[in-house]
Amino acid sequence: MKLLEEKLLKDGDIKGTDVIKVDSFLNHRVEPDFIEAIAAEFANYFSKKSPTIVLTLESSGIPIAYKTAELLGLPMVFAKKSESLNLDKETYTTEVYSYTRQNSYKVKVSKNYINSSDRVLIIDDFLARGSASRALINICKEAEAEIAGLGFVIEKFYQGGGEILRLNDYDVYSLAIIEKIDPVSRLVFISQEEVNSMY
Amino acid sequence: MKLLEEKLLKDGDIKGTDVIKVDSFLNHRVEPDFIEAIAAEFANYFSKKSPTIVLTLESSGIPIAYKTAELLGLPMVFAKKSESLNLDKETYTTEVYSYTRQNSYKVKVSKNYINSSDRVLIIDDFLARGSASRALINICKEAEAEIAGLGFVIEKFYQGGGEILRLNDYDVYSLAIIEKIDPVSRLVFISQEEVNSMY
Repeated sequence: MKLLEEKLLKDGDIKGTDVIKVDSFLNHRVEPDFIEAIAAEFANYFSKKSPTIVLTLESSGIPIAYKTAELLGLPMVFAKKSESLNLDKETYTTEVYSYTRQNSYKVKVSKNYINSSDRVLIIDDFLARGSASRALINICKEAEAEIAGLGFVIEKFYQGGGEILRLNDYDVYSLAIIEKIDPVSRLVFISQEEVNSMY
Repeated sequence: MKLLEEKLLKDGDIKGTDVIKVDSFLNHRVEPDFIEAIAAEFANYFSKKSPTIVLTLESSGIPIAYKTAELLGLPMVFAKKSESLNLDKETYTTEVYSYTRQNSYKVKVSKNYINSSDRVLIIDDFLARGSASRALINICKEAEAEIAGLGFVIEKFYQGGGEILRLNDYDVYSLAIIEKIDPVSRLVFISQEEVNSMY
């Protein structure tokens, strides 16, 4: 997605050869016009799969998942990371390791909100090693729901999470795929078509 | 807001005389049509204050704050609760005690995203004792930004957070104000007009 690649080149704050900070427009401060353009891409791509619900993980994915759900006319569920006294006792629960935060945490979805008749569209801001995505997939499996597909705003291709998902035949659509960050901290993109041709 | 009071009576899951669970339509699973109706109320009410930014706290307030920001044509910032390696070093930071989770945590906003020229509209799902709101107000004070107002979907009037805010002359707009939950777990509402007439 050209708009997104341009935004990343202009406003992405690159740290070394691994980290790209997108706080200014994606996961701390958001601009609704930009979020809408991203969500429209997801809605357009995944509408053919007739999803019944959009699922994300709190917090950074929520604006994009919300807007995608709105455009598709679907409800949106965000999986919860933390222990809340107010969450239902009956939950689908799985564990995920965060490399960014360097700890493990539980991810939960109330059993009331996903069931075996659902086709779940998973949306998140980043795909890196894929641990958060696998947690959401595990939740869908527990619910015996179908996975309609997985949409990511930014995929860090060099971290391998996308490969695992594609080798498992999931329909993965990433709007900007970073092949690598070169030694002078420059982003090198690879197209969705090139990636698809590998699998 | 009649639509919201009806929704609370229909789908709110009341626990004793204190807790009302709204997981099914507000803070775990959301319905975009309903969120839009809520956000339109906030946008309509607060547009006279010409806010420059919408601020909320991750995660439950994000869909509503996002949609309100979209309708007002503003950026939205969500304060972060957790330590992330990727957050800017320069942050406004404050502490908040969560009665629901029974612990204290830090709340942070990057200094890049709020400044002294901002008029901040604070949006959240719940107003109870007001600790989260006071944390967001503290962040605005640190930034020397003006508070345009505070909008809440549900105010638990009996927990007193709203009183503190109104006595401090903040413009507080709550879409459903629960005066009390009576012994048979029935919601008793009080109107915004009645509340305003008290202060």
